[in-house]
Amino acid sequence: MKIAVDAAGGDYFPENPVKGAVVAVKENKDLNVVLIGPEESILEELKNLDYPSDRISIQDAPQVIGMDESPAQAVKSKTASSIVVGLGMHQKGVIDGFVSAGNTGALMAASAFILGRLNGIIRPAIATFFPTIKGMGLMIDAGANLDAKPEILFQFGCMGNIYARDVMGIKTPRIGLLNVGEEKEKGTETLKKTHHLLEALPNFVGNIEGRDILSGQADVFVCDGVIGNILLKFGESIPDALNVLLAGVIRKKQLNTDQITLITSLLQEAFEPFDYQKVGGVPFLGVNGNSMVGHGGSSPEAIKNMILNAVKMVEKDINKKIIASVA
Amino acid sequence: MKIAVDAAGGDYFPENPVKGAVVAVKENKDLNVVLIGPEESILEELKNLDYPSDRISIQDAPQVIGMDESPAQAVKSKTASSIVVGLGMHQKGVIDGFVSAGNTGALMAASAFILGRLNGIIRPAIATFFPTIKGMGLMIDAGANLDAKPEILFQFGCMGNIYARDVMGIKTPRIGLLNVGEEKEKGTETLKKTHHLLEALPNFVGNIEGRDILSGQADVFVCDGVIGNILLKFGESIPDALNVLLAGVIRKKQLNTDQITLITSLLQEAFEPFDYQKVGGVPFLGVNGNSMVGHGGSSPEAIKNMILNAVKMVEKDINKKIIASVA
Repeated sequence: MKIAVDAAGGDYFPENPVKGAVVAVKENKDLNVVLIGPEESILEELKNLDYPSDRISIQDAPQVIGMDESPAQAVKSKTASSIVVGLGMHQKGVIDGFVSAGNTGALMAASAFILGRLNGIIRPAIATFFPTIKGMGLMIDAGANLDAKPEILFQFGCMGNIYARDVMGIKTPRIGLLNVGEEKEKGTETLKKTHHLLEALPNFVGNIEGRDILSGQADVFVCDGVIGNILLKFGESIPDALNVLLAGVIRKKQLNTDQITLITSLLQEAFEPFDYQKVGGVPFLGVNGNSMVGHGGSSPEAIKNMILNAVKMVEKDINKKIIASVA
Repeated sequence: MKIAVDAAGGDYFPENPVKGAVVAVKENKDLNVVLIGPEESILEELKNLDYPSDRISIQDAPQVIGMDESPAQAVKSKTASSIVVGLGMHQKGVIDGFVSAGNTGALMAASAFILGRLNGIIRPAIATFFPTIKGMGLMIDAGANLDAKPEILFQFGCMGNIYARDVMGIKTPRIGLLNVGEEKEKGTETLKKTHHLLEALPNFVGNIEGRDILSGQADVFVCDGVIGNILLKFGESIPDALNVLLAGVIRKKQLNTDQITLITSLLQEAFEPFDYQKVGGVPFLGVNGNSMVGHGGSSPEAIKNMILNAVKMVEKDINKKIIASVA
C-alpha cells in the first residue's frame, strides 16, 4: 500500500503534510508514503522527526501551485508540480492514492484530466463531510458540477452511498435529495426526475428540506454543486458568526472572566464536529483513482486522517463498487 | 389606509391576528384594519379586547385553508376563504394591502392569480428576511421561482433593492448574487449572465459566497428559489441544532443550575435576530398589490410588524418604484 502525499500544498507545507505522513506510517505498519514536493524542504522537515525511513520516500517536484492560482492554467503549465507529478504516478500505477491539502480546483482538474473518469460515470464529484447532530454526514456534490442533470445527480447518490458505507462506516446510509419540500412532486423538473431515479436505491429516504440537514434526517445529501458549495461554506461560517453575536451579548452583560471562559470552552466543544481542520480530507468520487483533498489549513492530524481514508478507499475497492453500482 | 388581516391563518388564529391588528391600530392612528375570517370567532376574540371600534371592521369569510392544504386546490375550491376573499377585495381596490400568517403556497398562488403581475415583471418572488451579524438582510427568492433565468434573477435584485431601501430602511443596500466564488466568471451560465445584468445596478457588490452571508457582506442576497428556500430553512434550524450540541456538552461537564441558566440566556439573546416569530412578515414582490405572509407561528407582535410593513409598502409606493426600476 503506497499513498502519495502532496508536500507542497495547503497553508502549512511542508510541515503539516510531512508530520501527518509520519504519524500515518506509525499508525499503519503496512503503509508506505511518498512525499511529493521540493526535495530539499521535505528533507529539512524530516530531519527533526523520528520515522521509519524504509516506509517514507521522497519524490522531487520543484514547482509549487499556489492556493489561489487558476486551476486549469496551473495544471497545464506546472508539469513539475506535486499535483501533476503525483497524479501522473498514480495514473501509471506507481502509487495507490494521492492526497493533498492544496488548491482544490487544480487537484480536481488534474484528477479528472490525468486519471480520467471511472467506467460509466458521467461526471466526477466532490463528496464533502457535513456535520449533523446525529453524526457526520456526506454532501455530494460540493462544487465540481454546477449544472447537474438527473442522471448525474443519481450517480452522486450511488457514489455517496458506497463511500458513506465503506469508508465512513455507516451501515445503511440514508440517501436524501436536497429539495424545497418533502413530497416527491416538489421541486424543479430536474429534482423530480432525480427523485424518481433515486427511488431505485433501497436506502433512499426521499427529499430533504433545508431544516432537516443539521438535524441529520439523512446521511448522504445529494445536490448539485452550486447548492452544495453554498451550503458547505455557509455551514463553515456558523461558528464565527455565532462567536460575534455572543461577544456582543457578553459585552453587554459584563460577564466576569470565569463566565467567559466557561462559555468559550463550551462552545468550542459543541462546535467540534464543525472543525473542518480536524476532519481530514474528502474524495473526488468518479475519477479512475483515489484522489483526496483536505482543507488548506489541515493540521498534521487532518492529513493523517486523509491518508488513512485513502487507504480505506483502496482496501475497500470503492471504485470497483461504484462502477458496479451505476452499471 | 386600510389593511386587511387574515384572521383565519397561522397556527394561532383568530387570537394572534386579532391581537396584532388591535396593537397596530393603536400604534398608527391613521390605520384602519379589516379582519377577514369566520365572523363569530373574530367577534368572540375582540370581545375581550379594548380597541378603537371605528377603525377595526370585520369581513366574514367562513372557509378556512389549512396550513398543509394543497395551495392550487385550496385557492380554487375555497372561494369563501379569508385568503381568496381578502385578495379579491384588494384587487377591487377596497383595501390597500393584505397580510396573513397562513398557508404560504396558497397565499402566493392566490396573490399571483387574483392580483396579477406588475407591469414588466416576469415572475413575482418571495423576499425573506435573513439575519446577519451586521443586521437584517433580505434574501430573494425564497421559493416562489425554482428555475430562474438571468432576466428573472436580475429583476429580483431590482425588487429587493427597493424593498430593502424603502421598507427596511437600508440607505444604499448592497446587492449580492449568491454564487460559488467571488470572481465574475464563476458559476453556471445563468449565474454569469445574471452577474452581467446586475452590474447595471450601481450598488451591486458582486458574487457572494456561502461563507459571506452570515457575515453580512451584502444586504440583499439574490438567488433562485431552490437555493433561497434551502438556505432559509437551514438558517432557521441552526439554533435548535446548536442547542442539542450544547446540551450534550452541558451534560458531559455536569454544570450547575446557575451555569446552565447563564448559557441558556446568553444563547437566547445571541439568537434573537434568528427568531422568525418576531420578525414579522415578508412580501410577495412583483404582484400588483401589497401582499405579505408571516411565519405560521407569528406572535401578535409579528402580525403587528407585518401590518405596519404593509403600510410602509403602500406609503412608499413600492410597486410604482419597482415598475420604474425594471422598465
